[in-house]
Formats: sequence, structure tokens, C-alpha cells
Amino acid sequence: MSEHHERAATWTDTSRAVAFSDGVFSIIITVLVLDLRPPQAPPGRLLYGLIAQWPTYLAYVTSYAYVAVVWLNHKATFMRVRWMDRALQWANLGILFTTALLPFPTAVVSEVMPKHNALDTRVAVSFYAAVGVVLCSAWVVFFNYLRRHPELLNENIDERFFDGETKRAMAGVILYAAAAVLGYFIAPPLALLIFLALAIFYGVTSHGLYLMQRRGRAGK
Amino acid sequence: MSEHHERAATWTDTSRAVAFSDGVFSIIITVLVLDLRPPQAPPGRLLYGLIAQWPTYLAYVTSYAYVAVVWLNHKATFMRVRWMDRALQWANLGILFTTALLPFPTAVVSEVMPKHNALDTRVAVSFYAAVGVVLCSAWVVFFNYLRRHPELLNENIDERFFDGETKRAMAGVILYAAAAVLGYFIAPPLALLIFLALAIFYGVTSHGLYLMQRRGRAGK
Amino acid sequence: MSEHHERAATWTDTSRAVAFSDGVFSIIITVLVLDLRPPQAPPGRLLYGLIAQWPTYLAYVTSYAYVAVVWLNHKATFMRVRWMDRALQWANLGILFTTALLPFPTAVVSEVMPKHNALDTRVAVSFYAAVGVVLCSAWVVFFNYLRRHPELLNENIDERFFDGETKRAMAGVILYAAAAVLGYFIAPPLALLIFLALAIFYGVTSHGLYLMQRRGRAGK
Amino acid sequence: MSEHHERAATWTDTSRAVAFSDGVFSIIITVLVLDLRPPQAPPGRLLYGLIAQWPTYLAYVTSYAYVAVVWLNHKATFMRVRWMDRALQWANLGILFTTALLPFPTAVVSEVMPKHNALDTRVAVSFYAAVGVVLCSAWVVFFNYLRRHPELLNENIDERFFDGETKRAMAGVILYAAAAVLGYFIAPPLALLIFLALAIFYGVTSHGLYLMQRRGRAGK
Repeated sequence: MSEHHERAATWTDTSRAVAFSDGVFSIIITVLVLDLRPPQAPPGRLLYGLIAQWPTYLAYVTSYAYVAVVWLNHKATFMRVRWMDRALQWANLGILFTTALLPFPTAVVSEVMPKHNALDTRVAVSFYAAVGVVLCSAWVVFFNYLRRHPELLNENIDERFFDGETKRAMAGVILYAAAAVLGYFIAPPLALLIFLALAIFYGVTSHGLYLMQRRGRAGK
Repeated sequence: MSEHHERAATWTDTSRAVAFSDGVFSIIITVLVLDLRPPQAPPGRLLYGLIAQWPTYLAYVTSYAYVAVVWLNHKATFMRVRWMDRALQWANLGILFTTALLPFPTAVVSEVMPKHNALDTRVAVSFYAAVGVVLCSAWVVFFNYLRRHPELLNENIDERFFDGETKRAMAGVILYAAAAVLGYFIAPPLALLIFLALAIFYGVTSHGLYLMQRRGRAGK
Repeated sequence: MSEHHERAATWTDTSRAVAFSDGVFSIIITVLVLDLRPPQAPPGRLLYGLIAQWPTYLAYVTSYAYVAVVWLNHKATFMRVRWMDRALQWANLGILFTTALLPFPTAVVSEVMPKHNALDTRVAVSFYAAVGVVLCSAWVVFFNYLRRHPELLNENIDERFFDGETKRAMAGVILYAAAAVLGYFIAPPLALLIFLALAIFYGVTSHGLYLMQRRGRAGK
Repeated sequence: MSEHHERAATWTDTSRAVAFSDGVFSIIITVLVLDLRPPQAPPGRLLYGLIAQWPTYLAYVTSYAYVAVVWLNHKATFMRVRWMDRALQWANLGILFTTALLPFPTAVVSEVMPKHNALDTRVAVSFYAAVGVVLCSAWVVFFNYLRRHPELLNENIDERFFDGETKRAMAGVILYAAAAVLGYFIAPPLALLIFLALAIFYGVTSHGLYLMQRRGRAGK
């Protein structure tokens, strides 16, 4: 695929971008725990206070799973990338930027939900979904760039791989947008479960839709 | 042991998982220090305030030792792992997830203990122990998977190594559960010492029960 | 260029300095998100509260872009460095130190701007610009040292590369100083846009002014 | 020196310990900036508030320099280490543990000093010095262990190197203890300058007292 391309002078290999991304992902995933705080319960009511924080735990688990899936996808993608040009560096920084946003809507959801204000809960859930839309959009940009630049890939990478990945990311954009609408107009607690379902979907397909379809066709 | 296995297409090597895990462990261990805050003491009473925070220091030392031991175990294990499939990636992410929880019960214990409410202290200590149970369970899952998948290991790894490790992790599940019960119904301050003892036990055996038994049998 | 230099006994290679710098940059860029906090809005006013925080978002995006550009520059520079002596270690630590300051003026700007106090806004913006001056000065020191010590560089590095880089960093010193003056005496909100423009300027030229001029002359 | 030693079964190489240590150091050095907070100044008094925080800045610069020096020393030491046994792993974890404490006394000093309570200021400064004593003691243990275990070192390492390093760390123990006494009984602000002087001393000698003496004797 890419063996007949010459390396451009400004291309670099992926090692520092991968190390930097691993650093950012490991910090994001750990920073999430900083929002798990001891509850402000009256004396003798600690157990009750810990239990009452359950939306925080759900938001934490969901966001943790989400960042884990982003990391697995990032790993699967960079196994196929040989060179980085400047546009790909910025596309990668876009993924890191949008992933780093995740603790913010997570904190909004986990702070607002225990207060049981219906309108605020809807806004919080939709805000989380909106960040999901932005995050998936960053992946669409990233995969689409790789799809159109096979010269940056390792040899023997089937170009259709990034066709499948682009579609998978677009599905995320659409489904998070749907979750924002459903969460705002219908049922906010349900929306948290939709986020978890989306994280599972991306986890299960983290080796790429293309590989799954091929294995599906091959009868395994 | 594993030399007669072919590498599956979706297996990857351990380098990025190790780098990511090192990142997460180093952040967890450093984030613990963020809960060591200047005491809110009245003017002229700083020394008294610093001393009154002793349960915080004890909780900090215990959790630091615990994460250090988790890291040493992780290192000793991954020295024996050659390939990672998706299930092993998630088993590893489960260990990182449960370890990342540790600053939360640590903060609960260190915030509750200076208030001297007997019931809350018991809840806090049992909560810490419960997280210990979850953490050791993640190791049981991880070791048990490796025990049943020798094709992922380096050559010349004695399969009995992971038998011993699985037992060691199961011992942790049982002992932390016991500490939760003892801490809640008998003596909370004692439970903190039990946690420290458990950390020491895991530290001393961090090269694996199997190696220790073999050396024991060999007379050294 | 450097092939006729002998390696001095106290020189080290760049691997640990690069790994350490990547760690610091990835933490700085992620720590910025910790200042994105759920707004303290009255019940039912979450959406309004989220929107009212817009200066925080602008400050966040600007600082994120800035750190990303610093990282890209750092990467482009260290591709050309072969050995580090002690002075270069400290010049690198100076860049890390000044970059690590960035979340501080970012927090000052994003906390002060929603309060709409004209004097404080001017001070905050000028303070951010002053940190920019310090940060660019650290790069001037760093590039100037490399310019005068070609024996530390890889072979075949054109010495004029670091002439161009030194000038580029000096431009930053002057422009940030100008932004400090303009932001204080004329229009603070405009200054935030100037910061963003500076970040874009450094992003576009992150492969070095020298390369751009050479390509400009070559007709491409 | 060590070429006639066989590698023991439980020894490991230094790569993960170095990566983990780099992670911890880069987080500690960046976490320090989290204590630089926007001042709680009345409207229109931001500039005054920023200036009044000067002890915070001094504490920050001192601690940053200190961690930077610890990192340089760590790097210089591990260039000479070939194998790690379990005791050396724990000696290294002891250094990481005591270095990770540093943001705590830094926060105590920077919070207490602006309040101008003479007794609290003395306590805060002595507390900082006491942590310095503990930190240097961890280095004494570490260097002393390497001094007595040349089989863990690279070939051709002069054993006297670690004699000199042990002495250098012992000097730190004594000088920090002296600073604790002087800061408590005589002049606290002076003590901050002593800390900075100690950081400079360790920075200047970060390649080892032994090398400096040898170069001193060789007339260079």
C-alpha cells in the first residue's frame, strides 16, 4: 500500500506522539477519581451519604469505561500508522483535547443529579452527550484523514479498515446526538445507561468494524 | 510452554499496556499526596493541627505502600506475559480501575477518623476494606485468565506460577473481607493496622508464592 | 557538523529528558481541565451557568493550544539534539518550569473575567501575557544555547535552523510584551484573541522558520 | 567491578523502575503548580492580591528546583545501575515516597506565611525542613545500599562514586536538620533562602562529589 511512497522531510515517527497520548489518557482516567469525594454527611450518616452518591459512581464508571475504550481504539489505530505529518499530529491532539474534556461533563452530571432538579438533570445529561458528539467528531476527522492518506500507514494495511472506522465514529456522532435529544426531552437517567451502552459498543468493536465483518463473512 | 502456539491476528505486545499502566500507577501514587492538606488550625496552633492529622498520615502511608505493592506485582507479572488479547487488556484495565479507586476510600478514612464518630469510623474502615476486596478480585480474574491461557505467556514460564498467584489474590479477597467485618464490629483503628499488614504481606511475596515455596523446598 | 566532536564524560543522551518532558507536558495539558468546574448556578439555571462560563472555555482552549504547540516545538527540537550537557538539562527544565506555570494565569483569567471588574480584567490579561513573555524567554535561552553548541546536535543539522528558532522565540517575547501593554491599556477581551493568534502562529511555524523560508525560496 | 557476578533469578532490569520514577517526578513537579491559585482579592485589588502571594511563589520555585535536582540525581545514579533486586526497588520507592511528600510542606509554608503569625511561620518552616531531612535520609539508604552491592552496578563503575554520594546525602540530612533548628529559633524567612541554597548545592553537584573532586585534583 504505502511502500511506493517516499518519506517527506517533515514526517516523524509515532513514538513521541504515542508516549504523549498514553500520558494524557492515563492522567484523564485517573483524574476522574478526584471527583469521588467523601460525602458531606451529618455525624453517624456516612453510610447513607456514601450510598446517596450513586449517580457519581455511575458517571465515574461510565467515563472510565469510555476513556479505556478511547485508549484501546487509539492503540489499535496507531499499530497501523507508520508516519505522522503535521495534520495528523493536530488530528491526534484533537482527540486528546476532546477526551480531556470528559471529566468536566462527568463532574457536572454527578454534581447535578443528587439535587433532583428535573430541568438541570436534563441539561447535564445533554451536555455530557454533546461532549460525546464532539469527541466522536474528532475521531471522524482523524480516521477520515488516515483513510485519504495511505502513504502514512504501515505496509499491508487494508484501506477499507479506515472506511469502517470512519463509519463507526460517525455512528457515535449520530447516537450521542440522539442521546442528547432523548435525555433532554424524555428520560435523563435512561441517558446514562445509553452512554454505558455506547461505551460497551465501542469496547466490543475496538478491533475495528472491518475485521469483525470479515470474520463474520468467514463464518467465525 | 507457549512456543507451539501461533500468534493470533488481534494479539498485541505488552509495551503500550505497560506504559499506560505505569502512567496510571504513578499518578495514583502521587494523587494520594493531594489529600495531605494544611490543617485549618486557629492562629498559633499549626503544630497542634499538623499532629492532629495523624490518621491522614497513616492512611496515606498505607495506601502508598499498597499502590507500590500493586505496581511491583504488576511488574513481576508482565515480565512473564508475551502477548495480550482483548480479554487480558480488559482484565488489566480492571486492575487499573480498582487501583485508581484507592484514593477515594483513603480520603473517606482520613476525613472521618479525626471527627471521632464511632459509627462513621466503622463505616469508613469497612468501606476501605470493601474496596480492597474489589481490588483483589480484579487480580483473581487477571491471574486466573493467565493461568488458563499459557499461549499468551513467555516461553519457559512454569504454569504453576499463576496457580500460586491466583491463590495469593484469593487470600487477599478473604482477608480484606475479614478486615471489613472485624473493623465494623470490633475495632476500627486495629483495621488500619491490618491493612498495613496486608500490604507488607503482598510486598514480601511480590515475587510470587510459587518462587517462595520452591526456594523453601530447596532449603534456601 | 558534530561528527568531529568527542562525547564529554558528563554528557547523556536525551531519552530520559524526553520521557520526563512528555510526562510534564501531558500532565500540564490535562491539569488545565481541572479548572473547568460545574457552575454554582441556582436550581434550574444550569444551562445559563454553563453558558456564562464562556471566558473559562476560551482561556482553556487557548492554553491547551499553547501547550500543544510547546510540545510540538519541543519534539521538533529534540529530533535534532544528540547529547545533553548539564546546562542544556537546566535550559530544558526552564522550559518545563515556565510551561507548568500556564495553568496559574489561565485560572486567574477565567476566574476574574466573569466578574466584569474592568481593572482586574486588565491585570489578569496582562499577567497572562507576562507569563507568556517568561515562557518565550526560556525558549530564547534554550535555542540560543543550542545555536552556540553544535557539538550537542545530530550530524547534518544546519546551524541556521537554530538561528531561525531563536528569532521565532524572540518574536514571542516581543509580541507577548506588546499584548501585555495593549491588554492593560486598551482592550482586554481583544488580548485573549491575540494569545490565540500567537498560538496559531507558533503552531503553523512549528517545523521551524528556517525550513519555511527555504521552502518559500524553493517555490513551494 | 561487577563482570564476575552472575545475575540472580529475581533481579530485573531498571527500565520499568525508571519509567515509573519519571512518571512520579513529572507529576510531583506539575502538581506543585496546583497550589498557585487566583488570590481571593476584593474587586479592583487583583494586582495587590497577586503580589501579596509572593511567599507562595518563593516556596513554589524552591520546591520546583528541589524536585528538578532530585530528578537529575536520580538520572545520574541510574546511569550506573544495571540490575535491581527487591531491596533496591523499595529503596527507590522510598525516594519516590519522600519526594511525593514535598507538595504538602510546600502548601503548608505558602498558606501560613501570608498570615504573619510568628509561631505558625516557624512551625511551617521547620516542618518543611523536617521533610527535607526525611528525603535526604531516603537517599542515604539508597546510596549506601548501592555502595555495598557493586554486583548491581554497570561494569567499570568506580565504587568510590557511591561513597561520595552517600556523604553528599548525609550532608543534606545535617543541613536540613540545622535549617529546622535555625528556622524555628532564629529567622523563618532566612530558612527559605537556606532551602534554595541547598537546592543549588545539590544542583551544582548533581554529577557527583566524586567526579568533582577528581576533576578538582586533575586541575580542571
